[in-house]
Amino acid sequence: MNLESTKSLVYTEPAALRSAIRAGEFNAHTSGQCPGYAQANLAVLPKTFAADFLRFCQLNPKPCPVLGMSEPGDPRIPALGPDVDVSTDIGGYFVFRDGEMVEEVRNLKAAWREDMVAFAIGCSFSFEEALVEAGIPLRHFEQNRGVAMYRTNIATQAAGRFGGPTVVSMRPMTPARAIRAIQITSRFPNVHGAPIHFGDPAAIGIKDIAKPDFGDAVEIQAGEVPVFWACGVTPQSAIRAAKPPLSFTHKPGCMLVTDLRNSQLAVF
Amino acid sequence: MNLESTKSLVYTEPAALRSAIRAGEFNAHTSGQCPGYAQANLAVLPKTFAADFLRFCQLNPKPCPVLGMSEPGDPRIPALGPDVDVSTDIGGYFVFRDGEMVEEVRNLKAAWREDMVAFAIGCSFSFEEALVEAGIPLRHFEQNRGVAMYRTNIATQAAGRFGGPTVVSMRPMTPARAIRAIQITSRFPNVHGAPIHFGDPAAIGIKDIAKPDFGDAVEIQAGEVPVFWACGVTPQSAIRAAKPPLSFTHKPGCMLVTDLRNSQLAVF
Repeated sequence: MNLESTKSLVYTEPAALRSAIRAGEFNAHTSGQCPGYAQANLAVLPKTFAADFLRFCQLNPKPCPVLGMSEPGDPRIPALGPDVDVSTDIGGYFVFRDGEMVEEVRNLKAAWREDMVAFAIGCSFSFEEALVEAGIPLRHFEQNRGVAMYRTNIATQAAGRFGGPTVVSMRPMTPARAIRAIQITSRFPNVHGAPIHFGDPAAIGIKDIAKPDFGDAVEIQAGEVPVFWACGVTPQSAIRAAKPPLSFTHKPGCMLVTDLRNSQLAVF
Repeated sequence: MNLESTKSLVYTEPAALRSAIRAGEFNAHTSGQCPGYAQANLAVLPKTFAADFLRFCQLNPKPCPVLGMSEPGDPRIPALGPDVDVSTDIGGYFVFRDGEMVEEVRNLKAAWREDMVAFAIGCSFSFEEALVEAGIPLRHFEQNRGVAMYRTNIATQAAGRFGGPTVVSMRPMTPARAIRAIQITSRFPNVHGAPIHFGDPAAIGIKDIAKPDFGDAVEIQAGEVPVFWACGVTPQSAIRAAKPPLSFTHKPGCMLVTDLRNSQLAVF
């Protein structure tokens, strides 16, 4: 089943979707799948890099909120679902060697090694669902684009070889909606939480708001300000810069769909 | 004891401060008095106006959060303190006739009438205390000025003869601090809650940010944005416009100090 044929198909249960992915029956983007359930970014690193990476996440919780991690060598993360196997349950993977993407694979069975450690990192899908439920329209949804993302001049706190700039996602909205969006996303510290900036892009080192470093540009309309959230691309950039001999990530848009409900992630 | 001689004196217990005011021993501004306790704006109206005014407050909870109200003719509000008598427990009062200020008095004993109803309305002192505790400096404190307040083009929802524009207070801060300030003040819906706007003053009908309609102008520094909260001057303006034959308010800065702790007002 390819992307086109699955567009109108929505799984409601994460275990059913993971089972379909595992069986090779689904490899589409997971946006909109399993409403109410948290989706996660995947990062898989050799054990020798994992301790520093975990410390990097602990030091930088806004861009790098860890939802779960595996035992070394074990691709399962039971805390995210009793059957979750990150080597098979995602629709597509990128394989990196020395920080360079070398291959896209359908699963990690062949590439897996006994020293690999998997990290599941919170994803903005969770808070975007809460924003839309609260009646806050998101321009990149309206325009059917990817969210706009930018490298900033806000340095992460380094840990070992992991460091580099904070990457942010940007959503334009009116100040009144931005205030509401700050309230809503504050409830979700495990999926990037409140914004880290709004307004002047130059104040955080963004030279041209019309030219995102990742994703797609979206229009900022009159009366709107850009609102910036810390983004899960930050740890991916840090991993590339750290150049581990081998690492894996999910293919962008094909996330790990977990049994955690977004409402469980809300702190109040 | 006059303003000068009480500047360095801080009461810690609201009942002790109210007792001193009642005895004529204290009539200074109450800012900084009884740290941790909520202070309130006072509005006193004839019973024939009180029902509409209460409905006005219910319709406009952000500028007009009612902390307590009296029975008709009774100047006591036991919910705010067992001994609270609004006719004697405030350091100064303004008397209005037909919406015009006609007199400043030391207490309301002579002016009180058996048909008067008192309203205590939440005050920004409560959330300002929380902001300062959270390490967010407030420019008007630093510059020892009154907070800057502006009439906006945001109409209140009218009730009977009560209506008119929302008045806002403005505090300049960096976007990062504004985000934190939105989180903190969201916890205090009974003392104006989250801001209603930030950024462009013209978007809410403020023509010149350097010329506040009430209070003092404060400097907006490079990298800061003005952040606007609904303000307790809104109900005062509405009362003047409604022109009740008789009404009373506290003298600006001389608030009713209640037994309610600010932490009790926090919703989470």
